[in-house]
Amino acid sequence: MSLKSIDINCDCGESFGNWSLGADEALLPLITTANVACGFHGGDPLVMQRTVGIARDNGIAVGAHPGLRDLEGFGRRPMRITPDEAYAMVVYQTGALKAFVEAAGIALHHVKPHGALYSMLNVEEELAEAVARAIVDACPAPLLYWPAPFEKHALPRAAKAAGIKVAGEVYFDLLYGDDCSIVVERKKTEKKLSDVAERVRRFVRSGEVVSVSGKVIPIDAQSICIHGDGPNAVAVAETVISVLRDEGVAIEPVTVG
Amino acid sequence: MSLKSIDINCDCGESFGNWSLGADEALLPLITTANVACGFHGGDPLVMQRTVGIARDNGIAVGAHPGLRDLEGFGRRPMRITPDEAYAMVVYQTGALKAFVEAAGIALHHVKPHGALYSMLNVEEELAEAVARAIVDACPAPLLYWPAPFEKHALPRAAKAAGIKVAGEVYFDLLYGDDCSIVVERKKTEKKLSDVAERVRRFVRSGEVVSVSGKVIPIDAQSICIHGDGPNAVAVAETVISVLRDEGVAIEPVTVG
Amino acid sequence: MSLKSIDINCDCGESFGNWSLGADEALLPLITTANVACGFHGGDPLVMQRTVGIARDNGIAVGAHPGLRDLEGFGRRPMRITPDEAYAMVVYQTGALKAFVEAAGIALHHVKPHGALYSMLNVEEELAEAVARAIVDACPAPLLYWPAPFEKHALPRAAKAAGIKVAGEVYFDLLYGDDCSIVVERKKTEKKLSDVAERVRRFVRSGEVVSVSGKVIPIDAQSICIHGDGPNAVAVAETVISVLRDEGVAIEPVTVG
Amino acid sequence: MSLKSIDINCDCGESFGNWSLGADEALLPLITTANVACGFHGGDPLVMQRTVGIARDNGIAVGAHPGLRDLEGFGRRPMRITPDEAYAMVVYQTGALKAFVEAAGIALHHVKPHGALYSMLNVEEELAEAVARAIVDACPAPLLYWPAPFEKHALPRAAKAAGIKVAGEVYFDLLYGDDCSIVVERKKTEKKLSDVAERVRRFVRSGEVVSVSGKVIPIDAQSICIHGDGPNAVAVAETVISVLRDEGVAIEPVTVG
Repeated sequence: MSLKSIDINCDCGESFGNWSLGADEALLPLITTANVACGFHGGDPLVMQRTVGIARDNGIAVGAHPGLRDLEGFGRRPMRITPDEAYAMVVYQTGALKAFVEAAGIALHHVKPHGALYSMLNVEEELAEAVARAIVDACPAPLLYWPAPFEKHALPRAAKAAGIKVAGEVYFDLLYGDDCSIVVERKKTEKKLSDVAERVRRFVRSGEVVSVSGKVIPIDAQSICIHGDGPNAVAVAETVISVLRDEGVAIEPVTVG
Repeated sequence: MSLKSIDINCDCGESFGNWSLGADEALLPLITTANVACGFHGGDPLVMQRTVGIARDNGIAVGAHPGLRDLEGFGRRPMRITPDEAYAMVVYQTGALKAFVEAAGIALHHVKPHGALYSMLNVEEELAEAVARAIVDACPAPLLYWPAPFEKHALPRAAKAAGIKVAGEVYFDLLYGDDCSIVVERKKTEKKLSDVAERVRRFVRSGEVVSVSGKVIPIDAQSICIHGDGPNAVAVAETVISVLRDEGVAIEPVTVG
Repeated sequence: MSLKSIDINCDCGESFGNWSLGADEALLPLITTANVACGFHGGDPLVMQRTVGIARDNGIAVGAHPGLRDLEGFGRRPMRITPDEAYAMVVYQTGALKAFVEAAGIALHHVKPHGALYSMLNVEEELAEAVARAIVDACPAPLLYWPAPFEKHALPRAAKAAGIKVAGEVYFDLLYGDDCSIVVERKKTEKKLSDVAERVRRFVRSGEVVSVSGKVIPIDAQSICIHGDGPNAVAVAETVISVLRDEGVAIEPVTVG
Repeated sequence: MSLKSIDINCDCGESFGNWSLGADEALLPLITTANVACGFHGGDPLVMQRTVGIARDNGIAVGAHPGLRDLEGFGRRPMRITPDEAYAMVVYQTGALKAFVEAAGIALHHVKPHGALYSMLNVEEELAEAVARAIVDACPAPLLYWPAPFEKHALPRAAKAAGIKVAGEVYFDLLYGDDCSIVVERKKTEKKLSDVAERVRRFVRSGEVVSVSGKVIPIDAQSICIHGDGPNAVAVAETVISVLRDEGVAIEPVTVG
């Protein structure tokens, strides 16, 4: 029984002022869902507006990608914050992005925490509960994106308990550890496209990925996450899409609600 | 023909992190409308959430008080920005505040620009048009607060042209110049309460204020603006309210739409 | 054998822009050494210049009080940073303050890390080594202030290994745990002045403090640290000074080198 | 009588955290003097340390390149600041950079204001006087870089009055207006290398540049300023150097004092 359809999401809008980052203009036309930075780790109001506009023009669903208040560290340095702070920073950033999304005539689609905030929400129960409340309070139809399998992780569990739909993600441009976690790269490397293609094909046909040591891991995913800042990110995206088309898989956003 | 009812508004939520500012806890129960800072010149997500919560608990209408991105200068240093930047900074801040307002179960009431952004919007036509669009795009029922008389000023004119309702403000804790402008203080001074009371009484009975040189200025105002950071701000507010009650004027928010 | 002389230090210059904090104007004339915030957790260039000027005019030695880049959290939220980042943030902040100190015609006296950076440097060996190098590189006559007893703590040990003189601090406005650590308050409370006086007297005569459970702890301290943000901070400082004078203890800065 | 020797300077270290800018690694080995950003408009402590290290390793003189506190606008949006603020922001940034420079075992060479701060200092006399004092206070051997001819401009005049040496700059990758001012580009364009070569050759032989309308302007310059962020910045630098060598002009830093 092979996959019928899947979403492709990518972190976008992470430029800031005079500084550019990522390959938004090349990638946005290829994907179905954009996670747009909200100004705390990257993105500024003008970048947010423009990114949302390009996404809307390409028929792409837009989600909020909130991060820790740490421009210098790009939101990748874990900080000890209180649940109250976590709640407030997610409501603030999601609300700011939602205003641009609605001004563009579309609806906010989902929330996907960024960087160290994501890592902290994998394990910190109290922060996770606070952020689940923030998503309920700030999203009209609450939907969370999270790497699958996510059964053991704090935020997706708190989200489900709060009635938030969770979309599982699969990664083809990163490797999996034996514990099913994604192996994050310190420095982005060029990906071998034939390896990417092979991983996509296997997942589409079997719903599985293979860990670095060869362990087979079943992944229940509704979305493929692609990184925009790798050296050959656009080629990776094109490869993924090409295999999906060969295999007859429809590419479309995760439906909310 | 004397005044039937009037609103009292005050800038609130201008603390930041560990730093406190203003007399929010004493003033919020006295006023009918709060202009809440949105994080660029003052306020942080936690302060915004708390201020909105206190306002909601006291039945106070909440508006957005967006400013220039300048914490160090408290948004009081004019900057040369583009209309696109002005649009985006107002949508961003208004959207962020709106999320807290809606999470608290109330609706966003109005927008009132802060400090140097306010000054710039008095005269810069292109910025004013951009900000009028931002208010239309980010507010469900667009309402702008502006010092009366505002016929000659850029934003209230652009706002009216864009179909935004404009509420005129009158000031009793600042003096008026002969050109009808408010005389802004560099350093807040203690106000003589009998003078404040006299100004309120005259305005309620005649709709007029008197300039520093004795010129009589008719003011078409629906709201009294009170400053929360003067040395005797709470006593000033109590004096204003006391005179309004003596004169039989109802104190209630400006109605939208 | 009682104490001959001691220094009194206080964190100063932690206002930011329009926001004031602490009782600098009242406290600076009372103390002998000021730890001046350097802009990352508090302080801005103008506040730094003014604080250094007041210190110089009062004959007070000035040290750098660097913190994490976290204005919103006042540098009190631990962050995961690299040793390279720790080195660079201490050199940057110390260098900035040193410029104001030298412009005022005096010499930089010492370094004392603030808040979460201090806590992290109690235990993280690699950060401690990096910060010790930063102090050597940025201070003409390297001197570190640290709560005594500090033998087990990472930065004072790394500092001594790097040839940096370490001045031990004693606290009379905070309590000691049985493990000799200071019991930090979440919210500053008013101190009972007779208790403060009793602690100073005991320390001056015996070199000891008593923990919350009654354990006697010998403290080898060359400086008393006073907090400027407690409700009766100035009265506490005056009490400490009064007892020192009664006991014939000279109040003077720690000498460098 | 043709030119014997000249300096080549370039703005460097304008990356911030995860965001890169400019072609520092390719350009630093080609130039003789680097203007290093100090953290307010670009640059962070780690970027500053690394840029200074690379400059030192290549035998390049290092100057401070202070800007307005405006990361989002890259220091290019004029702000209304007071002379006290201007003084303090230049001392702060220059002091921070000086610490890295001295930690690298070299001496701070000069100061060159960035972006909107530069523009403001062309005309605002009070700010210029304050910044001249800042340079005197923060630089061991005060030297200012400024585009020639600078006789009418506020900061170079205030600097000369304060005993600061001023090095004139000539530009070959930007055009000159008839009023001798440089025509700043909104968006950097690719330069025609033969035009650049022709301009260098003319200047070396005659000390002149030609304005957009053909007016001949004598330029008394000790340094060539090259921009690192143009599409073919490295090729422009190589072209300039190639012509200088052909013409027998030595390339070396401006000497201080």
